Amino acid sequence: MNQVDTKIGRQAVMYTFSNSEAEDSRIENGMQQLGWQFGKGKVGSMEFQKIVAAIETLAKRQGIVNQDIYREMHALYHAIIEAMQGVTRGQVELGGMLRTAGLRFAIVRGTPYENAAEGEWIAVAVYGTIGAPVRGFEHEAIGLGINHI
Amino acid sequence: MNQVDTKIGRQAVMYTFSNSEAEDSRIENGMQQLGWQFGKGKVGSMEFQKIVAAIETLAKRQGIVNQDIYREMHALYHAIIEAMQGVTRGQVELGGMLRTAGLRFAIVRGTPYENAAEGEWIAVAVYGTIGAPVRGFEHEAIGLGINHI
Amino acid sequence: MNQVDTKIGRQAVMYTFSNSEAEDSRIENGMQQLGWQFGKGKVGSMEFQKIVAAIETLAKRQGIVNQDIYREMHALYHAIIEAMQGVTRGQVELGGMLRTAGLRFAIVRGTPYENAAEGEWIAVAVYGTIGAPVRGFEHEAIGLGINHI
Amino acid sequence: MNQVDTKIGRQAVMYTFSNSEAEDSRIENGMQQLGWQFGKGKVGSMEFQKIVAAIETLAKRQGIVNQDIYREMHALYHAIIEAMQGVTRGQVELGGMLRTAGLRFAIVRGTPYENAAEGEWIAVAVYGTIGAPVRGFEHEAIGLGINHI
Amino acid sequence: MNQVDTKIGRQAVMYTFSNSEAEDSRIENGMQQLGWQFGKGKVGSMEFQKIVAAIETLAKRQGIVNQDIYREMHALYHAIIEAMQGVTRGQVELGGMLRTAGLRFAIVRGTPYENAAEGEWIAVAVYGTIGAPVRGFEHEAIGLGINHI
Amino acid sequence: MNQVDTKIGRQAVMYTFSNSEAEDSRIENGMQQLGWQFGKGKVGSMEFQKIVAAIETLAKRQGIVNQDIYREMHALYHAIIEAMQGVTRGQVELGGMLRTAGLRFAIVRGTPYENAAEGEWIAVAVYGTIGAPVRGFEHEAIGLGINHI
Ligand SMILES: [Mg+2]
Ligand SMILES: [Mg+2]
Ligand SMILES: [Mg+2]
Ligand SMILES: [Mg+2]
Ligand SMILES: [Mg+2]
Ligand SMILES: [Mg+2]
Repeated sequence: MNQVDTKIGRQAVMYTFSNSEAEDSRIENGMQQLGWQFGKGKVGSMEFQKIVAAIETLAKRQGIVNQDIYREMHALYHAIIEAMQGVTRGQVELGGMLRTAGLRFAIVRGTPYENAAEGEWIAVAVYGTIGAPVRGFEHEAIGLGINHI
Repeated sequence: MNQVDTKIGRQAVMYTFSNSEAEDSRIENGMQQLGWQFGKGKVGSMEFQKIVAAIETLAKRQGIVNQDIYREMHALYHAIIEAMQGVTRGQVELGGMLRTAGLRFAIVRGTPYENAAEGEWIAVAVYGTIGAPVRGFEHEAIGLGINHI
Repeated sequence: MNQVDTKIGRQAVMYTFSNSEAEDSRIENGMQQLGWQFGKGKVGSMEFQKIVAAIETLAKRQGIVNQDIYREMHALYHAIIEAMQGVTRGQVELGGMLRTAGLRFAIVRGTPYENAAEGEWIAVAVYGTIGAPVRGFEHEAIGLGINHI
Repeated sequence: MNQVDTKIGRQAVMYTFSNSEAEDSRIENGMQQLGWQFGKGKVGSMEFQKIVAAIETLAKRQGIVNQDIYREMHALYHAIIEAMQGVTRGQVELGGMLRTAGLRFAIVRGTPYENAAEGEWIAVAVYGTIGAPVRGFEHEAIGLGINHI
Repeated sequence: MNQVDTKIGRQAVMYTFSNSEAEDSRIENGMQQLGWQFGKGKVGSMEFQKIVAAIETLAKRQGIVNQDIYREMHALYHAIIEAMQGVTRGQVELGGMLRTAGLRFAIVRGTPYENAAEGEWIAVAVYGTIGAPVRGFEHEAIGLGINHI
Repeated sequence: MNQVDTKIGRQAVMYTFSNSEAEDSRIENGMQQLGWQFGKGKVGSMEFQKIVAAIETLAKRQGIVNQDIYREMHALYHAIIEAMQGVTRGQVELGGMLRTAGLRFAIVRGTPYENAAEGEWIAVAVYGTIGAPVRGFEHEAIGLGINHI
């Protein structure tokens, strides 16, 4: 029997990399065995705040976070911003710098530490392209934010 | 026949994720079919500059970049710094902020665009953990830097 | 007789903390004894520039700075930006990161150093909440900027 | 009867402002009535990491955080870094920029939200001076970091 | 015979400094002798992206870069952003911080290194004023970005 | 008769560009006619703080600033840091990022505004190379910081 991967960040990134339902299912099964919650989505925008909103909306809709509890939204928000630092590399800005991003994102909530006292953590992974607002004039970018929740 | 993945950034990240020789070989075969150059290594340090140095040294030793040509080293350097932005998320600093990183890194040099005029690009991926200088008090982090070379 | 507090930054922060006219008067009396100039106001916005404008407007209207002299406006501007760094913690941005701020601010112009040659300085303090554009989904934030004028 | 102040950030800042045992006691009594945990300390250094270490050490020693649980140390660490953003205003660096800081800090752990589901939060306040490594060539600085714990 | 200045960055900056056709011609002659390509323009805006766009547009129109090749646009883009870091000093933002810039810019593409293997590099220089949206309430600012192309 | 250039920033940059005594004299004469104070120096280091110190030391030794007055040192310090932002482009760090700088700098104190009420301002210009700690593996960099004094 395969050991399920408990690296919550790697799982989230692999989930954004997956292009096929088969691969999605394989990753989802692993996370389900661990009792973790997860979701994935897509967003493309020159407006940074729309990317934040898209990730928050999916997390709320799929019940990965409880949208009535600020501490959960706070944990998610900081994970998103940290993930987007990897995508934007130095300036948390897109259109204001005349660049746009087309991203897939994954949110995973789980228990990556063996010690039960470490409780739940949330990982936000973002993968896609960033570049000029010209088709194909872009390169890949990635980001990962991890927070206790 | 499988299509080889020409996403240079994803390839570099997958290479840092790989834990087994079998997986390493699978990724390496794909990159070799594309005629790309690549290498992977490990580094752990509280000193940011040691991480930069470790990546540069591997790239030079394995001939992924020509160490006698500044334009190649310049392309690599900026790719490394961009990758480390994803790991450090806002401040390009480790020990000075009382944190340490244990990282695997991969360097891939190839031709990710169909148009031959786009020439060669370099991807630097970094994956591992960042946290307090206390065993286990750390979480995952990732970064990817991509540059024309 | 009480010693009047000559810590211009602390005075400015205390002034933003004050909720009552009694407390306001106590602080104002201290600053008046020192011959200092001061003002306080409120601003809530997702637009960073509106917060800067609100602070500048109050400072000009109350004559704390001379709006016809650029060097005074320059000193004030940098003090405001430095104060807002404490509120925004890493990215001088609000709505673009899908967050909003509700702030009280105070401006104090005075002579905090014993040596008369040190002349006048300006302190801008900002205190309030920052968070999601959802009522109550916010936490406190503070900032202080100090400049020679 | 006075309402106890449940603004955890303001309490932490006031605690760093306090110069007298009487004032300390007044603030501590308020926090004790709320069942909150707290501590205060002093640190002066050109080395940023020493300031982080001093705050972490006090928090651990006084049992404000459980040093065996990474999620608690993670919450504290990010609160410290956010607080120090207000002090350093743009660059999380001291000696490397030829400046030094002399700071008082306070850590408060409590329940600032009415909704019990919001649970515990931690506030780190830092107040003091920053400037050249020359006596008196410094001005005040402040910072506040708040995190769910 | 005068030695032509092969410092590509200094040439670009001098070109932005030049106020007269005579001075322009002198600088242009030097660059032409070196076989370099160049252009200069003007832009004033509170919108950072308009400044990026103005520089990109001139570079494309004058054929300094090949607008059909992403690697050329990528090299130019990063040079522009690096140049604007010198103008904005810490935050890549203008109007969002309630400030505006009036700039002259120069783009030079050439071979600043003796070793032919170092190939072509691009320099973007930006010089002008930055300040409040009030006439005369501004001071000078400069920036230089250099990249291999 | 030539009009003397009252652009304090441009003067400071030109002064760092100058390679000859003749050019130095021409620039110095212009500044002397304006009654301005100035100085120039050189510094090469991987340690950011050594560059700050070298500029401060020259300014003090040549009496451009009064080293006994903090407000003057404060004005100079912020001008230096702003200038170095242009050199370091995003991270105020050198050796910690495995890079080194070889710089010429100029400090000019004068009255660049027609309105006498605008008083004195200070410009710090820095020009040279930044790159790997390998001879010739470097490119040009520039920075300018301007402050009221
Ligand atoms: Mg963390
Ligand atoms: Mg890029
Ligand atoms: Mg200061
Ligand atoms: Mg927060
Ligand atoms: Mg470079
Ligand atoms: Mg300024």
